[in-house]
Formats: sequence, C-alpha cells, structure tokens
Amino acid sequence: MSSEFGNKLKVSIFGQSHGEAIGVVINGLPSGEKIDLDKLQGFMERRRGGKNPYSTKRSEADVPKILSGVINSHTCGMPFSAIIENADKRSGDYSEILDKPRPGHADYTAFVKWEGNADMRGGGHFSGRLTAPLCIAGGIAKQILERRGIFVGAHLYEVAGISDTPFPAYPDNALFEEIAQKDFPVIDNDAGKKMKEAIVDASKELDSVGGIIECVATGVPAGLGEPMFDGMENRLAAALFGIPAVKGVEFGLGFASARLKGSENNDPYEMRDGKIRTVTNNAGGILGGITNGEPLRMRLAIKPTPSISKEQNTVSLSGMENTKLVVKGRHDPCIAARAVPVVEAVAALVILDTLIEGK
Amino acid sequence: MSSEFGNKLKVSIFGQSHGEAIGVVINGLPSGEKIDLDKLQGFMERRRGGKNPYSTKRSEADVPKILSGVINSHTCGMPFSAIIENADKRSGDYSEILDKPRPGHADYTAFVKWEGNADMRGGGHFSGRLTAPLCIAGGIAKQILERRGIFVGAHLYEVAGISDTPFPAYPDNALFEEIAQKDFPVIDNDAGKKMKEAIVDASKELDSVGGIIECVATGVPAGLGEPMFDGMENRLAAALFGIPAVKGVEFGLGFASARLKGSENNDPYEMRDGKIRTVTNNAGGILGGITNGEPLRMRLAIKPTPSISKEQNTVSLSGMENTKLVVKGRHDPCIAARAVPVVEAVAALVILDTLIEGK
Amino acid sequence: MSSEFGNKLKVSIFGQSHGEAIGVVINGLPSGEKIDLDKLQGFMERRRGGKNPYSTKRSEADVPKILSGVINSHTCGMPFSAIIENADKRSGDYSEILDKPRPGHADYTAFVKWEGNADMRGGGHFSGRLTAPLCIAGGIAKQILERRGIFVGAHLYEVAGISDTPFPAYPDNALFEEIAQKDFPVIDNDAGKKMKEAIVDASKELDSVGGIIECVATGVPAGLGEPMFDGMENRLAAALFGIPAVKGVEFGLGFASARLKGSENNDPYEMRDGKIRTVTNNAGGILGGITNGEPLRMRLAIKPTPSISKEQNTVSLSGMENTKLVVKGRHDPCIAARAVPVVEAVAALVILDTLIEGK
Amino acid sequence: MSSEFGNKLKVSIFGQSHGEAIGVVINGLPSGEKIDLDKLQGFMERRRGGKNPYSTKRSEADVPKILSGVINSHTCGMPFSAIIENADKRSGDYSEILDKPRPGHADYTAFVKWEGNADMRGGGHFSGRLTAPLCIAGGIAKQILERRGIFVGAHLYEVAGISDTPFPAYPDNALFEEIAQKDFPVIDNDAGKKMKEAIVDASKELDSVGGIIECVATGVPAGLGEPMFDGMENRLAAALFGIPAVKGVEFGLGFASARLKGSENNDPYEMRDGKIRTVTNNAGGILGGITNGEPLRMRLAIKPTPSISKEQNTVSLSGMENTKLVVKGRHDPCIAARAVPVVEAVAALVILDTLIEGK
Repeated sequence: MSSEFGNKLKVSIFGQSHGEAIGVVINGLPSGEKIDLDKLQGFMERRRGGKNPYSTKRSEADVPKILSGVINSHTCGMPFSAIIENADKRSGDYSEILDKPRPGHADYTAFVKWEGNADMRGGGHFSGRLTAPLCIAGGIAKQILERRGIFVGAHLYEVAGISDTPFPAYPDNALFEEIAQKDFPVIDNDAGKKMKEAIVDASKELDSVGGIIECVATGVPAGLGEPMFDGMENRLAAALFGIPAVKGVEFGLGFASARLKGSENNDPYEMRDGKIRTVTNNAGGILGGITNGEPLRMRLAIKPTPSISKEQNTVSLSGMENTKLVVKGRHDPCIAARAVPVVEAVAALVILDTLIEGK
Repeated sequence: MSSEFGNKLKVSIFGQSHGEAIGVVINGLPSGEKIDLDKLQGFMERRRGGKNPYSTKRSEADVPKILSGVINSHTCGMPFSAIIENADKRSGDYSEILDKPRPGHADYTAFVKWEGNADMRGGGHFSGRLTAPLCIAGGIAKQILERRGIFVGAHLYEVAGISDTPFPAYPDNALFEEIAQKDFPVIDNDAGKKMKEAIVDASKELDSVGGIIECVATGVPAGLGEPMFDGMENRLAAALFGIPAVKGVEFGLGFASARLKGSENNDPYEMRDGKIRTVTNNAGGILGGITNGEPLRMRLAIKPTPSISKEQNTVSLSGMENTKLVVKGRHDPCIAARAVPVVEAVAALVILDTLIEGK
Repeated sequence: MSSEFGNKLKVSIFGQSHGEAIGVVINGLPSGEKIDLDKLQGFMERRRGGKNPYSTKRSEADVPKILSGVINSHTCGMPFSAIIENADKRSGDYSEILDKPRPGHADYTAFVKWEGNADMRGGGHFSGRLTAPLCIAGGIAKQILERRGIFVGAHLYEVAGISDTPFPAYPDNALFEEIAQKDFPVIDNDAGKKMKEAIVDASKELDSVGGIIECVATGVPAGLGEPMFDGMENRLAAALFGIPAVKGVEFGLGFASARLKGSENNDPYEMRDGKIRTVTNNAGGILGGITNGEPLRMRLAIKPTPSISKEQNTVSLSGMENTKLVVKGRHDPCIAARAVPVVEAVAALVILDTLIEGK
Repeated sequence: MSSEFGNKLKVSIFGQSHGEAIGVVINGLPSGEKIDLDKLQGFMERRRGGKNPYSTKRSEADVPKILSGVINSHTCGMPFSAIIENADKRSGDYSEILDKPRPGHADYTAFVKWEGNADMRGGGHFSGRLTAPLCIAGGIAKQILERRGIFVGAHLYEVAGISDTPFPAYPDNALFEEIAQKDFPVIDNDAGKKMKEAIVDASKELDSVGGIIECVATGVPAGLGEPMFDGMENRLAAALFGIPAVKGVEFGLGFASARLKGSENNDPYEMRDGKIRTVTNNAGGILGGITNGEPLRMRLAIKPTPSISKEQNTVSLSGMENTKLVVKGRHDPCIAARAVPVVEAVAALVILDTLIEGK
C-alpha cells in the first residue's frame, strides 16, 4: 500500500527529496486522451517554488519526463509513468538532522519506523517535493476531467488568520483560471497582499505560517461514490491527508455545520431548470458518500511549515539527550500557498477515479 | 469496495435499517483473543437509542448473534461474523420518502446511484442503525487493544455550540471508563446538562442539533502507519467519514494549527523518563502519517440530524415538481451523542489494523 | 484479505463447518437485478450432498436465508448477504483430529498459523461446506450473466482416469442445462457410469478418487480483464484456487500447449459472419489476460478427497510422536463431482466482476 | 489495478517494449536490506536475450538504474523504483502488425480494449521485455529471502516434449546455483542438449516451441498464506499468470494428483529430526492455502512463442477482411528458456510478500 491511492485509477508516488529522481506511475488512465504538455507544464509551474520571496529558494525546473503510457501525445491504456530528475539538491544542508529530529517533521517517526534506515535528506519521501509527481498525475487528470465538463479549482481561503473571499456557490472555470494565473492564489488581491506581508514578516522572524485551502469541483455528476467507507468523502479525505502538512479536512460547511440546527443545515430540494437541485449546498455536494450533482466543496487545514530557522529544542538520537537545533536549508515560510495546485491535483485524481468506476 | 475498510483487518458492514438483519464480517482478527460478551454488550448499550428523551424512540435490544470466527469464547483466526436481527422496524413510517427525498439524507443520491432500486426504508444501508454492527467490530477491537495497553476514548466535545472540557494531554483509561458509564458522554456534567437542554429544546422546536466529538487513543506505539496515502491520518479519516453525518475530521490542533506560527505549532522533542517524547502534542500523535508514540487525538464534526419534524421543501421524484415534506418516524434530535462510541469503535479498528500490519 | 475476492464485485465468505452458520457478503452487485429464488435453490441442489452413494452422507437442506441487499426479489445496490444455518452437524466425529492432523487436510497448517486456536471441527473454515455460500453468490451471478447472454457451464472432464467427452468448441446453454439436470455432471452418460463405479469402488476400498473439471463460459465480450497481474486468467486462477482441493488450473490447451509448436498453437484470425473471430480457440478466449470474444475455457485439477477411511500415518500434536489415524465422519469419495457447480459459481463471479469493471 | 500485484509488498510494472523506458516500483520492501548490485546484475543476465542461437537477437544491456528507495546500497523503507532505458528498439519492424493482429499475441485484445489507442509496437506493455523490471524486483526479493534461509530455484522441466530430470525432493541452493550458472537452465545437460536442438530446429522451420518450468522454494516457514482466496496458491497463481505465455499453473503433483487415490496422494505426517514433517510432498508444501514447511513446488505451462516467421492467416483491422501475415522482428524460438528466472522472480516476490505479512 503506502504511497499509492485509488481504486480503478491507481496513483503511485516514488522518490526522495535528494535521490536520483521522483516520479509517478498511474494505472487505469482512460486511453486515447490527449496530454497537452504545455498546459501540464503550466500547471506544474503553479506548484514550483524559487520564484518569489514568499516561497522556498530551492529552484527545480520540474519538467516531467514521460517514460510510458503515452504514444503520439495520447494515453495508450498502458501504465503511465513519468519522472523528474532531481537537479538542485544540496544534501550537505541536512547532515545534522539525521541525528536531531526536526520538530514537526517525520524525521523521528521515520527513524522509528525504519529503524534508522530511512533516507531523510531533505525530508526524504516525506518532502513537499514529492507533490511534484502528484501534480503531474493531477494535471493530466484535470485535462481529462475538463473534456467531460468537470472543473477543479482552489484558492487560499485563509493564511495567518487573514481570509480571502470564499468561492461563490457556483464558481465557473474562468474564476479558476484567473486564480491560476496569479502569482499568489487568492480571489481578493487585497487579502492576498496582506497574506503575503504576513508570510514575509514570519519569514523575517525566522518563523512560518499556516493556512486553509478551499477547493471546489463543478460539473461532477450525481451518483458517484459508494456507501459507507468508499464514498466520495472517504476517498477524498484519504488522499488529501497524503499531502504533507494537511491536518484537517472538511466537506461543505464542515465543522461549522456542527453548530447549526437541522433546519438550517439541510439543503432543501427544488426543481430548477427542469432538474432536481438543492437550494443551498451546505453538504458540499455529497450525501451518504455519494455525489448529488452540486459542486463538491472542501477545505483543508495546512499547518505552518515545520522547517523554521528559529532555534528549537530537540533530542540527539545517538546521545539520547536534549539538544538544540537550527534547521538550515531552503524552506517555504508558508507551504499552504504552493499546496493549492496540489489540492486540485489530488481532488481531480479522486474524482476521475470515481468517474471511471461509474455509478 | 464500498461498505468495507481495512488493510489486513477487513471490516465489512451489511444490512438495511428495515431489512432482515444487519451485520458485520471481520477478516484478519488475531486468533486466541478472548471475547468478553458482557463487556461487548456494555459497549453496544452506549450506542443504543430509545433510552431517554434526547435520543430516538426506536428501541432495539441490539444483541449480537455471533455466527462464526469464535470457538469457546475466543477468536479462532477464521472470519468473524455477527448479526443483529431487526426487531422493532416500522416501515410504514417511510412510505412517503420513497417519492420525496428528505433534505440532508442519502435518499436522492441513492435514488440516482441505483436508479430507483435502492431500499431506502428507514434510510436503508445509510441508516445510523448500521453503526450497531460497526460497534460489534469496534467493541471487540477495543478488547484486543486494551490487552496491549492501548485505550480509546471519546466524548462530546461540543453540542449546539456548548463546549465540554477537552481531554487532558494524557487521559487515562479511568477517565474513558467514567465517561462510558454516564448516560451522556461528557467530561463536565454541567456542560452536559446544558447540552441536553439544548437537545430537548431543539426537539421541541421539531428541529435537531449537531456536535463535535473528540477522540483520543493512548498507548499506541510509535512507527505505525505508512507514508503518504496509507498513513494513520489517511486511514482514520477514510474510515471515520464512513460514520453517517461526519462532515469534518481533524487531527491534533487541526484547523486551529492553520492559524499558528511554526514556532507555536511544532512539538519540540525532549527526553522524558528516558524516552524521546514531545513536549506538546499539537500534531495529535502523528507526523508524516506515522505515529510518534504520543496519544492520537482527533475531532469529528457531526452535522445536525437531517431527520427533523419541521416541514421542509423538497421535490416529488415521480412528479418532478416542488412539494413539501414532514419527516415522520423516530429520530435522534442529536446523533452526535450516540455517535461517541461509534467513533471509538472505528478508531479502535483502524488502530488494530495498523498494529497487526506492524511497523 | 483472506476469505474474499473480487475488485468491484467483492465476495466475502464466512463460517465454519460446525459453527452457527455459514454465509456470504457481496458488495457491488448491480441493482435492480431479479433474484429467482427457485432457480437459485435448483443451483444449490446441484452442489448438495447426501443424495446418492457417491457423495457424502451429511445432508443439509442448504436453503439460503437472505439478510440484506434485496427488496421485492430484486437487488437494491446495497451489500447482499445470506446465511445458511448449520443443521446436521456432528462435532463428536472430529474430536480426534484436533490432536492428530489428517493427511491432505489443512488441520496442521491451520494449527501452525493460528497457534492451536483454530476451530477445525469438520475442517472448520476449510471445509467443502463453505462452497455452499459460494454457490449462493455464484448462482446469483449466473442469473445476472444470463440476462446479458453469458452462460457458464462445467462438467466432470475426468474422474479416476476415465474421460468424459470434452465440451464442443461452442457449447450452447442447452448442453449446460442438460448436464445440470443430471445427477452426475457428465456429457457422456457411459463415461459417467464408469466414473460412478470407480467412485463406489474407491469408497468400498475406504479410499477416494480425484478428477478434472472443465468449465466454459460463452458470450463473454472481448476486451475484459487488465494486462499483466489483473487479467482474466490471473483473477480466475486466484479465485478458483480458493475452492478446496484444486491443485492446478489451466486455460485453453493449457499444459498441452507446452508440447505444441507455435504454428499449431496460435489461433489464426478470420472474418466470420462479419466479425473478427479465431479459427481455433487454443488460447481459451484469453490473450494477454484480456478476453477476445471466444468462449473462455479452463480446466481444474481436483485432488482425491483427503478424508479416507483407511488407516493413515500421522503425528500427535500434543505428544509430538508418530501415531495412526482413521478419519471418521461422512465424506465424499470424490469431491470433484460436487465441485462442478462450485467451479461454475466462481467463474461466473469473476466474469461478472470484470464485466462490471468494463473495458 | 492491472500491472500490479502484492498485498503488503506491492510490485508495479510499467513501460512498453519500444517506449522510453521500462521500470518497476516496489512499495513495502523491508528497510535496511543490502542490495548487491553485482548479484542483481548476474540475475538479470540470466533473463537477457541476444546471447545465443536459441534466443532473440534483440540485445539490451538491461542495467537497472535505481531511482529511489535505496541509500548507501541499502533499502530505506521508502518506495523502491528502478528503470531500464530502452536502447535497442527498432519500431520499424512492427508497422504492419498495427493493422494485422498477430495470432497468439495480445494485439487484437488490446485493440478492442483500448479502442485502437494501444501502443503495440513490439508488443507494447505485453512484451516479454517487461519481465526485465520484474526480474529487478524479484532479484532483490531473492537476496532478501536468502538472508532468511529461503531459496528459490527453477529449471526447464520440459521443452518440445523433452523432459529434464525433475528437482529432487529437497533441492539445496547449490543445485539452484549450478543451474543458474548454465547458459541453458536444466539439471540434465544431455536433456538440455536435445532441447536446444529442438529449439534450433523449430527456428529453422520458422516455428517455435513451448515448455514447462518447474520451480521450488525451500526454507519457507509453515503458516504463511491466508485461507480461501488469499492463500499461497491463489497469490502465486495470480502473479505467475502475469508472466507472458503462461497458460497453466499447478502445485505439487497438480493435474497428476487428479488421477491418484486419496491414499496415494495424501502426505502422511511423521516426526523427523524432532519436527513434524510430511513423508511425501505431493501437496507441494501447501494445504488449505497455507504453507506446511515443506518445499513449495509448482509447474507452469509456457505456450510456444506466438511470434513465428511462418506465414499466418489473420485479418486486416482497417479492411475487415482476411489477409496473411509474416511476423518480422527478432524473437525467441522458445520463451520458456528465458522465462525460468522470471518464474523465480515472481515466486520470490510472492513469498516475500507473505513473509512480510507474517502468519
């Protein structure tokens, strides 16, 4: 199991931050689907760091090299695979952390799990860098979904306590595209400006901030997902928690619905344009794990980047004694910003999986 | 897939609210484990309704009939199965909803998915009644875990905006037992009293309320869970979203961590009693999907019971026109209360699964 | 894992030979499918023993009690479950074998696996009795397939070295029905008569005989199955080896093809009735794991019943010393005969699973 | 699903014969395991063609490039991946077959499944070339198993009707090594000489021959495998049928046991060297799907290479009319010979998977 998800569309991620290459294998992609490489690269760019003061200084070209599953720019039904070679790796930065687990990282848990055998240079397989192959897969899934009228978009709903305008009830793809073009993925640029300031401030204090991402998928047909443990929420949550730093996932009103009355939270049905629709969408498009045809809505809590330059308390694994640590290396003061396309990628992959499975 | 979860410990739930019986099959239970039937029944009782004014009036004895997997009160390694026969079913109550989907329920999504073939009497397979076999499985898992020093407890963290005292950092099993003995699963009885009043008030208004459940597991060893998509958070979330009405899941500080700085949210390591421990537990015992030996902490948002007696707007599936609906039948004005042991059950099953898989 | 198979159609078998009940849960059955209970019972009858001198004297009515997944005689999309209560069990017969593992049975391997905790009365979960719930599932699958023009039939290809006439290249359902009506499932009654004599002879010698079952499925569309490890052969084999006593599985010419030249074994293509067809069907309808539209053909080796009344050498598990054993109880002198409908059942379930998955 | 197998050890194969690269991802390898690259390369060499007159003239260096999962020559617990770049590909040879499906190949079934989108140059993903990454995975599994006293060996049991000496009851690793060193994997060199002559003769006749491979694994502990559908036989068969051209799999005496009496086929138990052992091993080390501690024994039927240079009848997919085809390209006149290490690879991977799962 482990670094894989999906039922009929299986996505398997491999690689370590400072290894030879990172990559992805996808089993079950529909055949005959055109892959627009320029568009894919554009999507990859949205995740890439090294571009501005509020993201990591590590700069990778992140150009996927497709190894299989494609012929004449179309999927051929056979397993898709692609890799990104790791170019700009500087393992020297990480020598200390092999003995001193970084608070908030998987260093210690990986040490216990693999009894000291883990490759934790740059976070190893737990590095945010592994979301690059996830975006290859998700970028392709988005192209396939769009041909079927399904659009997935996300934005920074909140950073450091500063809120963006939420998505409207029925966002169109133009809005998703507009956000995707921005260097900072928000709807309200003023809010974005404040968020960026908060990020730069945290960075100056050798600290980091967290955030909340809102993701919406429109055009998803009703009837997808299975009851109980294989529903749309179960599958989305299982995959979304695979994105590093995600600590909470909610659908529709989520935790806010826990404070409402049934009469406020229930979405009444009505006939609209000859179709059965809900008046509101507090359920986020999912009832009993199954889609109802309304936009899927979800929010994810992203914890503040654990890599901070402030001195922190930790222990020495070799000495079994308390010690101090200053995390070196190049880090994002707010990973939530770069995680926005990753959330879209994962959501798109799960939706495509349920779509292939069918009702 | 569908009504099943688990990797090595597979739990499969079957049955409809008004069918012959509901039940569970478990593959992969360790052999030679004593099943204390009295204790199991005690656990089942915590979930059972019909006992007081703030829960449903449907009363089922809910005595599991074990069909396989047990010999001389011990698990025998072979698939475990148990059923509960449905005694107190009154399908007459539900005739109207077959045409008029209840807002907030799976009536409409099941109708679309199964093209009108679904058995939605009493909610069918989506009914909260299906959490009874889940509790059979979870009650057994809890017994097995307890022999290994792992204890799982939960309480109503919030109902109708009224908060209970949160769990302490290191709750002991005595606290879990104390809550389990109460007729209303809270730590602070005063808060509980207010919650019950809010529930009864909502009920009088023909309405319902939601809530938040906090669940903690202590004694879970470090190193469990796999990276990325098969981690402890992924697996817990995937299973927990299988409980009806769950709309959000968070671990550790969850959404609150999105508003903190890295220096506040990171859990520094220290040596304590000769062991590597974290000073705080904002991560809820999980880093990179892998347990770190600290208590697992999670919270779930439970939406208000969708079945309310107030008149609601809906549509007629046969007439394809707007109409009104008054949901009849017997319902809990707050399902969160009865969901508390269900959350324990699911958490226990997932933890046992990862424990069987091992590091 | 364990007692379960299938991708989208999941079949889970539970129960022990001398437990309360045996049963089956099926997730993923299409909804709205009529279940003809008389026809299902007729199929169950073909497997049932106790009817003649060449099968076991244990007689069970084997009437399935459907617990869920059905409403008004049609599948409702929710998990199907059914049980058969164990009536005619005589555990007294088996007390000796708990200490003295029967040669050829799973007694010893189950003892090791579950460290003495296994319920091996009557063979426990390994008993041929567990093929009854498999036939419930398979009987339903056959009904669903038949509505789609897919027919599955099997016969005793060989018993004690005596051969039946093989299936013709394109057997029709009338032939399958004809065999199904017989008390002994062969095409050539003369061969059948000799086989029965050989079985009765073996029985008189306190011994048993093995056999080979041939199974064919017609009407299976081309394009089902996935490449490499999830192909039609892989899935059929994985499930068919779950039938007790199966020790070999081959498709098309199978082992005989290993002795042919490529020019003899290859099935040339030709246009026939406007369709692409193969001239011969040495491949048994499967190439590269994917169906080609020709009838699926497979053969299974069934070992002689391990339960024989002759004295055999074994060991005492408690004494760790050599000893003798005479297996008591009621056994089939040739399980191959009763396994014929079981093979049909398993093949039908796998084919239905691939059909639901689609191309 | 598709090109993947395994429960806890997941092996995923990707690539097409004439694509950029072929490769493998393994999830779940134990950490801290040394990978001896020279030994791995030696194992790869056994599969490689282009070395002699009785194998294909396509010559690939087949040097795996490890991308992840290894640090300092040891597994690190994270997903392992490796690729082989396709160097000596000549797609020009295959232009005709895109329209004229080759008898015995997956050309037609892939065409139907993927509606003409498949990349069938050189057989695409169905090519025997894909067994190279399988051997990378299997070669590593063999190294890990050997450290635990488990040895897997195979030989050509039969080619073109000519039989090799079967494996002795308890073959030691020295015999496996001896066969591995030979340029033709047989025990009896005289038999091997005749087989090679038969292969060269068939090649001269523009034809091909099939064969049977025998595989044995020693040192496998008792108690591995699960009952019914996840047993050792089920899992081995499911994976072994993933090797191209396998049309039959049998365990122990297999089909021959169908012709024996119970008293002949049963393996009596006895105390030997203080341990419970079977006197014979007709069951091939597996009873009820669970290992009994005796050597695992299996045989596989390999059909004759479908690619033959003789003219064959086929159809034109574009013209929907009968036509003739002469398959060009470089092919093995007997793939069974090169499949021997592949069978070892797959058997080793399945055994390692069950070993990691544990009893």
